[in-house]
Amino acid sequence: MARNPERRTVLLDAAIEALAHEGARGLTFRAVDARAGVPTGTSSNYFTDRDQLLSQVADRIFVRLAPPPGAIDAALLPAPGKELVGELMRWMVRRLSAERTCYLGLFELRLEAVRRPELRTQLTKVLRSDLDLNIRIHLDAGMPGDADTVRLLYFALTGLLFDHFTVPDLHGDQDLDELVGTVVARLVPES
Amino acid sequence: MARNPERRTVLLDAAIEALAHEGARGLTFRAVDARAGVPTGTSSNYFTDRDQLLSQVADRIFVRLAPPPGAIDAALLPAPGKELVGELMRWMVRRLSAERTCYLGLFELRLEAVRRPELRTQLTKVLRSDLDLNIRIHLDAGMPGDADTVRLLYFALTGLLFDHFTVPDLHGDQDLDELVGTVVARLVPES
Repeated sequence: MARNPERRTVLLDAAIEALAHEGARGLTFRAVDARAGVPTGTSSNYFTDRDQLLSQVADRIFVRLAPPPGAIDAALLPAPGKELVGELMRWMVRRLSAERTCYLGLFELRLEAVRRPELRTQLTKVLRSDLDLNIRIHLDAGMPGDADTVRLLYFALTGLLFDHFTVPDLHGDQDLDELVGTVVARLVPES
Repeated sequence: MARNPERRTVLLDAAIEALAHEGARGLTFRAVDARAGVPTGTSSNYFTDRDQLLSQVADRIFVRLAPPPGAIDAALLPAPGKELVGELMRWMVRRLSAERTCYLGLFELRLEAVRRPELRTQLTKVLRSDLDLNIRIHLDAGMPGDADTVRLLYFALTGLLFDHFTVPDLHGDQDLDELVGTVVARLVPES
């Protein structure tokens, strides 16, 4: 296997582009090479097969979606409370909505996981570690609510972002910030 | 255009199968003909182009996911209240989870809508009419909560079902009924 890590990252980012723009079935070694602007055959030197490529794409998506180092600590400086949860959720949704390609790639990957057990295992692992981290941060910071509060925020924001990306006019009278506000108002206890 | 309505329905159901099993890019006239077991070229006599096929698939999914006639009236016979909302949600989630092919087809179609404005318009229309109907039934039956309660239930159940279909082990310690129970407990007011 080829080992240039920058080159591998370029290939994985090209794979995310292919996923988001053409769907999972459009994600082939050839499509990745073409989008990355590298000679045909390059990807197959970096990934043993499509399953391995998909697993590494899953990891890469979560690296890209993770907040920059220090951002969480800085965000947690104000006093914990329902209002701060609301601010953090709006910030997170704005970030995810700006990372459109990555987040759409994740949706495509999740549907592909229905057909691919190896990818399903990998996605379960990264999604669980992401959810666990969010629960831990919430509880450690003394935010109102419990682990199920965070789980429900995660469910609701998934549904909300899925609408935002695929049928953005569905909740035409309410913008993203308002919808997130309603989710937090209804799901997070006062203290 | 060919006009045999039973044949058209057979083709649309074959298209849903193709969507769920192969993803949106696997949905071609040829794949539909093959899955429906009809001569190659049949689909192209029923649909002017792929956009028209996709729009009609969207309609057909909602016809199939709709509860059987009378089911809603029967379900609303008990006294309205938080407990009844919980029962209805568990019933709905079990139905959607049994209609796996249809519901996965809807997810695939929604991602395809990102790339196809005509499909996006059609999906927005059917999803909005479904959501409006759910809000109307909830309010007319005197269930606790308001239109936003129903909207939030819809967000949360979308996220929950998306996990259930794509990464079923993510919430390994809790089954579908428990998760729905938590969603209703947290989102629906007592009265």
